[in-house]
Amino acid sequence: MAYDGTNFAGFQIQPNQRTVQGVLEKAINKMSKLDEYITVHGSGRTDAGVHALAQVAHFDFPHEISAEGMLRGLNSMLPLDCEITACEIVPDSFHSRFTTHGKRYMYRVSRGRYTNPFKRFYTGHYKYPLDIDRIKEAMPDVEGTHDFSSFVASGSQVKDHVRTIYEATVREDKANDEIIFEFYGNGFLYNQVRIMVATLLEIGNGRRDVHDFLRLYEVKDRSQARETAPASGLYLKEVYYD
Amino acid sequence: MAYDGTNFAGFQIQPNQRTVQGVLEKAINKMSKLDEYITVHGSGRTDAGVHALAQVAHFDFPHEISAEGMLRGLNSMLPLDCEITACEIVPDSFHSRFTTHGKRYMYRVSRGRYTNPFKRFYTGHYKYPLDIDRIKEAMPDVEGTHDFSSFVASGSQVKDHVRTIYEATVREDKANDEIIFEFYGNGFLYNQVRIMVATLLEIGNGRRDVHDFLRLYEVKDRSQARETAPASGLYLKEVYYD
Repeated sequence: MAYDGTNFAGFQIQPNQRTVQGVLEKAINKMSKLDEYITVHGSGRTDAGVHALAQVAHFDFPHEISAEGMLRGLNSMLPLDCEITACEIVPDSFHSRFTTHGKRYMYRVSRGRYTNPFKRFYTGHYKYPLDIDRIKEAMPDVEGTHDFSSFVASGSQVKDHVRTIYEATVREDKANDEIIFEFYGNGFLYNQVRIMVATLLEIGNGRRDVHDFLRLYEVKDRSQARETAPASGLYLKEVYYD
Repeated sequence: MAYDGTNFAGFQIQPNQRTVQGVLEKAINKMSKLDEYITVHGSGRTDAGVHALAQVAHFDFPHEISAEGMLRGLNSMLPLDCEITACEIVPDSFHSRFTTHGKRYMYRVSRGRYTNPFKRFYTGHYKYPLDIDRIKEAMPDVEGTHDFSSFVASGSQVKDHVRTIYEATVREDKANDEIIFEFYGNGFLYNQVRIMVATLLEIGNGRRDVHDFLRLYEVKDRSQARETAPASGLYLKEVYYD
């Protein structure tokens, strides 16, 4: 599914909050018309304001229905900021969270002196000068297997901070005056992408050494990677399964 | 100025409504710090939900201030969905509405089976099949001097419906699955662009004759051009002065 995260308090269901899981479960349970509550399992959470181009979720539906019928039915009931882009009937062994072996995130940085009104919810804005070549030089340091303890939000409960990033790229979209990051890895810690992007922008601005990531892997200290780029620039772009 | 029209009840100031003119006048009057109220004059109104890439407005400011100082000051006080993109000190003879001799509007049509969540406020969605060649064949009929009585919203007070369109184009943005219309003319009637776009889409869908515009100019009957494309796809792209 694709969703515009602007008006959602994140993916995960929460009481008295508008969440993606919440609107999905409401639609699905309306379709099932049974007393037994159907829970939706997402591939992972996304925070408030974070977008998805291809989030994946699964659920057990108690009636016979074609994938096409489910696609139509759900989209007819879902609000316009959440769209089911594809539906498939999967074997019972499939689990959207436990069987994924990778995710790809995109981060859009908009440039310019002031925030473009049309991009305020869809990019992170960075108004300071950037030397893109410095960022390009730093990107290979992001790839590989590292302890990302310096890049995890303090609220995280996860103990193991070792993750592998298979691919980390940056490109300039000159027509739109944007810089686009992509990160493909086996899994990401809470706020990891947003903290990495903020650090990469500081490298581009010259406030950090080009190879500061190598130092940050060593020190394992969240306070050293100070900033977190805004949620508005982050997109869950792909979730990988066998 | 550029503004995202989504959360504005249009350009023109109205009591108890959030309007572009309203937020502008609030910012300017805060800067002037005088009792005398400063009114902003726009080049024309835009409706609720209609966007602007380059709206123009003027006002008389009672203090000495550089254009650069005004640009900074206003942007620091304006909400993020309205951005002053340029500021100039103009002669007293300039009037943003009375001295304009043309405007350019753009209309973005998004395609696809369902509305893309990221485009719901920024395009008009058309899910039916379209033959772009039929639309291209119709575009020259839109250009020229015509009586646009069939294309004016019924609420309009304006009596003279003759306008000149210097240029009317359509192009496909295949990467984004959109169709982009542009109309450059000496002036536009209330809802004219949105009614013309809806009519052109019906031509593209085969529900109207390719040259139906010629008939519609003759009949001068609003009920014949039935639909009005949504405000969300419309952008005021340029306002022309000498």
